[in-house]
Amino acid sequence: MTVRERYIVGVDLGGTNIVVGAMPEDGSSELAMRSLPTRGEEGPAAVVDRIVGMVEDVIAEVMADTGAAREDFLGVGIGSPGPLDRERGVVIVSPNLGWKDFPLRDEIGSRVKMLATLDNDANCATLGEWWCGAAKGHRNVVGMTIGTGIGGGLIIEGQLYHGSSDAAGEIGHTTIDSNGRLCKCGNYGCVEAYASGTAIAIRAREALVDGEGSTLLALAGGDPANITAQTVYEAAKQNDPIAIEVVRETARILGTAISTLINIINPDIVVIAGGVTQAGDLLFEPLRSEVRRRAFKTAVDACEIVPGMLPISAGVVGAVATFKAQTLGKV
Amino acid sequence: MTVRERYIVGVDLGGTNIVVGAMPEDGSSELAMRSLPTRGEEGPAAVVDRIVGMVEDVIAEVMADTGAAREDFLGVGIGSPGPLDRERGVVIVSPNLGWKDFPLRDEIGSRVKMLATLDNDANCATLGEWWCGAAKGHRNVVGMTIGTGIGGGLIIEGQLYHGSSDAAGEIGHTTIDSNGRLCKCGNYGCVEAYASGTAIAIRAREALVDGEGSTLLALAGGDPANITAQTVYEAAKQNDPIAIEVVRETARILGTAISTLINIINPDIVVIAGGVTQAGDLLFEPLRSEVRRRAFKTAVDACEIVPGMLPISAGVVGAVATFKAQTLGKV
Repeated sequence: MTVRERYIVGVDLGGTNIVVGAMPEDGSSELAMRSLPTRGEEGPAAVVDRIVGMVEDVIAEVMADTGAAREDFLGVGIGSPGPLDRERGVVIVSPNLGWKDFPLRDEIGSRVKMLATLDNDANCATLGEWWCGAAKGHRNVVGMTIGTGIGGGLIIEGQLYHGSSDAAGEIGHTTIDSNGRLCKCGNYGCVEAYASGTAIAIRAREALVDGEGSTLLALAGGDPANITAQTVYEAAKQNDPIAIEVVRETARILGTAISTLINIINPDIVVIAGGVTQAGDLLFEPLRSEVRRRAFKTAVDACEIVPGMLPISAGVVGAVATFKAQTLGKV
Repeated sequence: MTVRERYIVGVDLGGTNIVVGAMPEDGSSELAMRSLPTRGEEGPAAVVDRIVGMVEDVIAEVMADTGAAREDFLGVGIGSPGPLDRERGVVIVSPNLGWKDFPLRDEIGSRVKMLATLDNDANCATLGEWWCGAAKGHRNVVGMTIGTGIGGGLIIEGQLYHGSSDAAGEIGHTTIDSNGRLCKCGNYGCVEAYASGTAIAIRAREALVDGEGSTLLALAGGDPANITAQTVYEAAKQNDPIAIEVVRETARILGTAISTLINIINPDIVVIAGGVTQAGDLLFEPLRSEVRRRAFKTAVDACEIVPGMLPISAGVVGAVATFKAQTLGKV
């Protein structure tokens, strides 16, 4: 008699998109992956409806494709923006979604009639890269996801590290300049205030003031307001000097923050994920030089700095992994 | 038949002083504690001689006081400035002592004919405060020792955390200003470059330029070159306005770095040790305010910031604890 394969569904709830998929328990493949806009403005009930529908669609597709039965699904791992109370499965506050003390885990678990777990989205992304992506086999991992903000996660001695109140790994809020730009978190000079996707676009607009004939401006249809981080990476690839300097400055800024992280955590790998990785070597080469200039040699020598390998699915893979960690005690 | 008490000797090798003492295995008391100047300029052989002599004196005193036998001593834990190779028991580089690839552990172990272990001095100090001092019973600890430099140690989930190449916890090299003062480590804007004892004295001398009539200057015998961090704390206690402002600025600087540490590590306690704690509430109150202004509320609410409780012996107590951790697998 063969042992039946068992499956876990992963949900990656973001401010912009919801990504849902399934994996066999051993993480060997990604199944029935799909994405829909979050549309948080419709309120939590509509978002939960959307997630539940996607979970049911994923289960149906996996059942049809593999011959699995409903009872072969162990449950649903959910990754959500924080701060969270993992034990109670509650989203304490989500400014992007406008939620407060929302029991997301049980709302979904009770609807799909399966065990559900909740963890921070940036923690899930880091765990996903560690389980199946760029950080596979590493012991101490700093994960950094650069999107609207900069999220982070830490794996310490092979375990996702949550800290004393589920708040660890907020590496977007590493100070690089104590009197610097105001950050959304209320602090001054956080790396997020300079190097998030949003901040990269702002710095590009500021730089444009002196560069009217720029490709950057052309790519934005002549209107600086249309410049996004994406526009900057594209213009840089087309050798636009302003865009190239914005990317290089981003590398120096990220390199400064990562130097602090390397001096403190001494990880064996730093994984950088999110849109910024599209800038490729133009970003990673000066970033690694900056780290080598700033951080301790014995720590730098022990550490790779690499782009993530799961640009779409890290959050889903990590949500599946956190489900395993929370229900089975290990990934 | 009563079980005989067993003892461990702890050695805290610093750039200025060597402190040696013993403890019963359960850490219930500090025995035969003594201190001598390091005199590193005499070379490693002379320093090893001095340490061996102190260890023998401690053993003799404990034997005389308790009736213990030589075989009741399990071994010697040594804390030394790093970077170290713990596994080989080697001090890789010690700029203060002028050592390179020096096999300190075995030099001492073979002389005293006992098992010996080696760990970083700042790690030992943190572990000492956790085992027997201010961080007792805490799970996630950031330890910061402010002396000539700023040393650090991390306890993560109840275990001393060494990182991927024994280089973790260099929290003195947390950036607070990416274009700031040059640090001894070669980086710019590390917290150590502003708030070590050395740097506090430098900032006080700079501030004096506009304050000729200061108590600070009087305490230094009229010569700014004589000002030390100690002079600053004394003058501040005597209400000298320049000294008070130097201490407050130190609090803001340390608060900025500790905010980064709290956002990343989410500890339940930060222990600050070293001479700077003599400044008392004048330091700790503005420091806690700065952290509350800068760091994430859920992380700040979970975290105490306190002075160390073992000003003389933390390093020795921690060296004993690391001996236990390395030979018995737990403290």
